[in-house]
Order: sequence, then structure tokens, then C-alpha cells
Amino acid sequence: MTKKPPHGETGIIRRYFSPLAEDTPGAFGLRDDAGLISPQEGMELVLTTDMIVEGVHFLENYKPGDIAYKALGVNVSDLCAKGAEPSVYLLSIALSGTPDTEWLEQLSEGFAAAQTDFGCRLLGGDTVHTPGPLALSVTAAGFVPLGRMVHRSGARVGDQVYVTGTIGDAALGLALLNGAGADHLSGEQADFLSGRHKRPQPRLGAIPVVRAHANAAMDISDGLFGDFAKLCAASNTGGAINAADVPLSDAAARWLEQDPERLGDILTGGDDYEVLMSISEENIIAFESDCAQAGLQIKRIGCIASRSEGVKALDFGGKSLEFKHPSYDHF
Amino acid sequence: MTKKPPHGETGIIRRYFSPLAEDTPGAFGLRDDAGLISPQEGMELVLTTDMIVEGVHFLENYKPGDIAYKALGVNVSDLCAKGAEPSVYLLSIALSGTPDTEWLEQLSEGFAAAQTDFGCRLLGGDTVHTPGPLALSVTAAGFVPLGRMVHRSGARVGDQVYVTGTIGDAALGLALLNGAGADHLSGEQADFLSGRHKRPQPRLGAIPVVRAHANAAMDISDGLFGDFAKLCAASNTGGAINAADVPLSDAAARWLEQDPERLGDILTGGDDYEVLMSISEENIIAFESDCAQAGLQIKRIGCIASRSEGVKALDFGGKSLEFKHPSYDHF
Repeated sequence: MTKKPPHGETGIIRRYFSPLAEDTPGAFGLRDDAGLISPQEGMELVLTTDMIVEGVHFLENYKPGDIAYKALGVNVSDLCAKGAEPSVYLLSIALSGTPDTEWLEQLSEGFAAAQTDFGCRLLGGDTVHTPGPLALSVTAAGFVPLGRMVHRSGARVGDQVYVTGTIGDAALGLALLNGAGADHLSGEQADFLSGRHKRPQPRLGAIPVVRAHANAAMDISDGLFGDFAKLCAASNTGGAINAADVPLSDAAARWLEQDPERLGDILTGGDDYEVLMSISEENIIAFESDCAQAGLQIKRIGCIASRSEGVKALDFGGKSLEFKHPSYDHF
Repeated sequence: MTKKPPHGETGIIRRYFSPLAEDTPGAFGLRDDAGLISPQEGMELVLTTDMIVEGVHFLENYKPGDIAYKALGVNVSDLCAKGAEPSVYLLSIALSGTPDTEWLEQLSEGFAAAQTDFGCRLLGGDTVHTPGPLALSVTAAGFVPLGRMVHRSGARVGDQVYVTGTIGDAALGLALLNGAGADHLSGEQADFLSGRHKRPQPRLGAIPVVRAHANAAMDISDGLFGDFAKLCAASNTGGAINAADVPLSDAAARWLEQDPERLGDILTGGDDYEVLMSISEENIIAFESDCAQAGLQIKRIGCIASRSEGVKALDFGGKSLEFKHPSYDHF
């Protein structure tokens, strides 16, 4: 049985979104037309926006709490990769039909959980109706000290390339949710992989080390290989990734062992929300030591070369891999 | 014949969106994961977000240039009402299918025109696919001097209530586009009204006078009467608007004369993107003189009363009007 939420648009905002903005300076309880940010002296504001759409970025049967968590997570992930501390976010949500109270409660709880986990708060938003699928557009804002945002374009020939966490889990999780591979995995492993698609964990621990050590960084959203190619293109370099060095979770490793064809999904499937970084040779000892101290799992997976050498992913025997779709593309 | 745009998502961004960010400091040619804003000392950042969806905020047959203009216009309108100078915006766009090059060109031209008219530039964005209708979510950022953002909540008993421009044009324009009223109007008048729905003109001229004189302000997007009620609620006051004083365009006045039932559309239909302001009695002379000097058309339409007097719209005879839907509500 579905219950209609009270009081239309204003009622929905008051009951389900205002609590998320309760402690946000400059949100004015979501009772104004706009939010206000007052940057401290010497700080710059990093802004990023990502929209997620039902049937494209998440499946129809995703729980509202997971959808909320993902909407904020994919944006905060961009901030982490730029070395910016998450601060506030704005949320535009297009609801298909009038959702029931339970659905809205769970959505709100998902945002509350994500806010707590990521250290940021709701500043403002817009709630509209759509005749189409549910869509959420988040704009997230974070702070960096003046001149310290880390770009995609700073990689230099000879840099070592690192990633945080493990790669390919979310792509395999999505394949699993779409019906593949369950017989390769334990129930726990299957839950782990699908959880990585549902609730990305932006690498907040990477913020200080990115800022301190990375020449270039970006988050991996469209697939490791394609995103690595983007970083190289922005930096006007080439580079190579060794598939054998790409860090895998136990679940992903087990699946890959039984179905080697999944390597493509792992390297190009995306939705990883890990950080890809390019580190100068001479910074590596300090970088690795800072990561260890912060408990941040990192792995060296390749290096930056001159542009003329191209951008490659090398297989376990050192041969260049070819991908039909090097990264996720909407068009 | 439709032509496929080149190179997928990256190709679309490079060709149609990057030119909009060419001169934006901190946009990095849209080749990074995020944009950067460096506020001047003593300035605060006002942020607002609004999403527009095909079939809800604009009709299916709207030209892409008009859709772009409206997506940015409705956001800049919020900034104007807060006394903030527009600076940059982020755009998330959900495209249904792969649009052809001509459509994308016109969309890009619409944004370019709006940027020029409104004095702001593209900082970043996201381009995704949707199985549903076209949707555009814009987050716009503007600057105010520290502590000078104008709120909804500042109205005081005895304030005079003003609006810019004319009211009801866009609501009548939409009715016209949906097939009503053409026989009441000349072709030019019909074009004027539908143009007011298609290409809202945020009141940039209101920014300095709002900042200098208004106790409270907001833009009128959901309908004059409902938005006035929101301003009163935020300010913990009551108030009254005189329908006879509400400024009408020639086209709206002519239609209303022939069909008095349209008063409801005019007062509650919304999409006006005019500024509603509450001005202290003692500031009125300076306010009106500054508006005259700036060439900003304003009209006194009512006053703020104590909360116990309620929020009213009075008809031409001074009787309280009742509306079935005091303002537009998505739910």
C-alpha cells in the first residue's frame, strides 16, 4: 500500500529534505531561493556535477537509499580526486509520479547516511515531476587551498601510475545484477560486488595524499583504461597500464580466474570511483609512506610515457590489449 | 535527415559545450573533472539549482535554443532576486537518444546567447543518456558582498510590495501554445506571450536595487500569489496583493478584458521570472528613483501585514479572491 506524502512539493521538501540541511550554514532551512557559501580566505571552491538516471546509472529495483548514496557518492568522488574537502551539495531531483512516504523516507535516510560518511551537507535543491524515469542531479562543492586543486593534465613522462582500492568490482557487480556469474561466487562475494555498484565509496582518505603528492589525478568512473587514456590526453603524454598489476578484490579475482573474458569488464566497465594518480618517481617513497599511515590502499599499475608511445594496457604476457569499448560512453 | 555527432560523449562536449567554457577562468576547457571558483575577498557565493524537463517545463516542440535559454534563465532569475551578480554555471543534461548535429548546434547557440545576455559562463557539467524525456539541470553561482544576500524572510509589517515587469504573460503564453485564446490576440501579441514562456528574461537590472533597498525578495516562478504567500510565510507575516494593481502587458490586458476568467492564470500560473520585493515605507522614494534611473519597470502591488491578517489577493472590488491552485505544484 502506498501513502501519499503530505502537502505537495513544499511538504516533500519540509519533511524529507529540510532535515538534511538543518545544520548547513547558508542553507536557510531550504526556505530561500538559493544557498550561500562563504569561503575562508585563501581557499578556492571546487565544483562538480553528475546526474544519475534510472535504467542508465542504476537499476529499477535499486533501493531509494542506495540511489541517494550513489548520487552523492559519484560527485564526492570527483572532489576527492581533485584534492578538495567536500563541503556542501545541491540536489535536483526529478520524480516520476508522486512517490509514497516510505520511498521518500528511505531516500532521505540514504542521503543522511552519505552526508555523514562523506562529511558534507545539503545546501539547496529543486524537486520536479518527470513523465520519465527518476533522475537525480547533484552539484557538489569542496574546498582547496589557493592553487592546490590537482588536475588531470599534470602527468609527466616517467611518473608512476597508481590507483586506490580495487578495480572492476562495480562492473562485475552490475553484470551479476543483470544475471551473469552467480555460480562463480559465494553469496558474500556476490553481495560485495553488487554493493560496490550500489554504494560507491569515494576515497576521502586520498584527499591529503593527492594534494601533497599527485602531479595529476582523476576518479575512475567510465572505466580504468578509458579514464587513463583521458588523463594521458589531458597531460599530452602516453602511458601503459599492466593488467597483471591492477588490484582486484578476492571476488573479482575468483570470477576472472573462472572466466578470463571478464578482464574487459574489469578494465573498462567503470563505476569504480577509485582515484587514479600520477606520481613523480622522486615522490614515491613519501607518497607510499603517507598512504600507509592514512590506511589508504594503493597499487602501482603502470607509468607515464611520451605521447608518441601511445596509451596501452598490457596483458599478463606484456602484449597490448584491444578493447571494443575502451570506456563507458553514453552516445 | 539527421546526422550523428562525432566521437560520442567526449566529441559532443568538445564540439558543442567546450566553446561555452572557452573564456571561463577555472573551467579548464571542460577537460577536467571539476571547475574552480576563486572568490574575491569580501565576497560570498550564492548558489541555486533548477531542473527543467520536457513536457513539464517546456513543450516537446520547443526549439533547442529556447530550451537552453530557459534552462539558464530560470536559474539566473534566482540570483537576481537575491542581489547576486551571475558568474558561472554548471549544466547536467540528460539527452534522450543521440541528438543530431543541428539540434546540438542550436542548443549550444541558445546557451551562448543566454550567457551573453546574462553575463555568465559555463564552468562544468555532465552529459548523460536518458530513456526518458530531455532534462537539463543547471546550477548557477553568483557573487554578493559579505552579508548582503537578500532573503525571502526579511519582510516587515508595513512594507510595500513591488514587482518588476509584467505578470501572467508566460502563463497565458503557455495556454496559447496549448491552443487557447488565439482569437483574442493579434499575431504580435500572441508571439509576445509565447515568447515570455519560451525565453524568460531574468531581471539583471534589479540586482543593485534589490541589494540596496529590499527587505525581502524572491523571483516569481510558481505564480505571483503562491510565491507572495511563501515570502510572507518565510517572513512570518501576512499581506495583501491588489489584483487591480498587478502590472499587465498590453497582450495580457486585452485577453483578460475578453476573458476575465484568465485572472487566475495571471496571478497563479507562474513562469514569470520577475522579482517580488518588499520595501520599507521610508526607502520607497530612493528605491523608486533608483529603479527609474536604471530603467527598471516596477509596480507597487500590495503591502505586508501582520501574520494574523492572513495572505490575501483582493479583486478589483477589494474582495478576497479564492484560487483552486494558489501556485504551481509538481505533486
